[in-house]
Amino acid sequence: MAATPAAEPPRPDVDRLELVEVLAALGHPVRLEIVRKLASGAEASCGEVVPDLPRSSVTHHLRTLYESGVIARRPAGRRLYLALRREDLELRFPGLLALVLG
Amino acid sequence: MAATPAAEPPRPDVDRLELVEVLAALGHPVRLEIVRKLASGAEASCGEVVPDLPRSSVTHHLRTLYESGVIARRPAGRRLYLALRREDLELRFPGLLALVLG
Repeated sequence: MAATPAAEPPRPDVDRLELVEVLAALGHPVRLEIVRKLASGAEASCGEVVPDLPRSSVTHHLRTLYESGVIARRPAGRRLYLALRREDLELRFPGLLALVLG
Repeated sequence: MAATPAAEPPRPDVDRLELVEVLAALGHPVRLEIVRKLASGAEASCGEVVPDLPRSSVTHHLRTLYESGVIARRPAGRRLYLALRREDLELRFPGLLALVLG
């Protein structure tokens, strides 16, 4: 039985999350929309949460969210699954997600 | 006796502050540094809180902070005084400033 492919190790580590990077990542309507769609904490496929945009925009926004530490990603075949790093963000910046998810 | 020149009316109005704009304004190291220097809520001159940067960068960062509603400005002769819109931000996004100034 094949194991479920593991998520990429979340990057950056929780103690390296930088507030300014996280704020910048959240400070865009498309990225805020993606984050709100991931609010439950459950993993979702890219297609479920990313609005219909040119591929280069999608790539840019997902990279910004990933590199700032807001989301984790798990590639599975041709699909990419995303999840909000709820616990890590809450640990490092308590209250921020509650505020942003309103 | 000359009256103290009034601050420009803060813009946008408190009920028009947009979270995504405020997050984007805060999501830059220079702007976050300015905001932290204004943390007390007291007015400060531009020279006291803005790091040494080319004038075009200063203009850009101050405009971003002003237009998002993070700061108010008061021109006085050749000087420009800045203040954090603490109360307005707290009213609209409770807890955000505490988190950012933390």
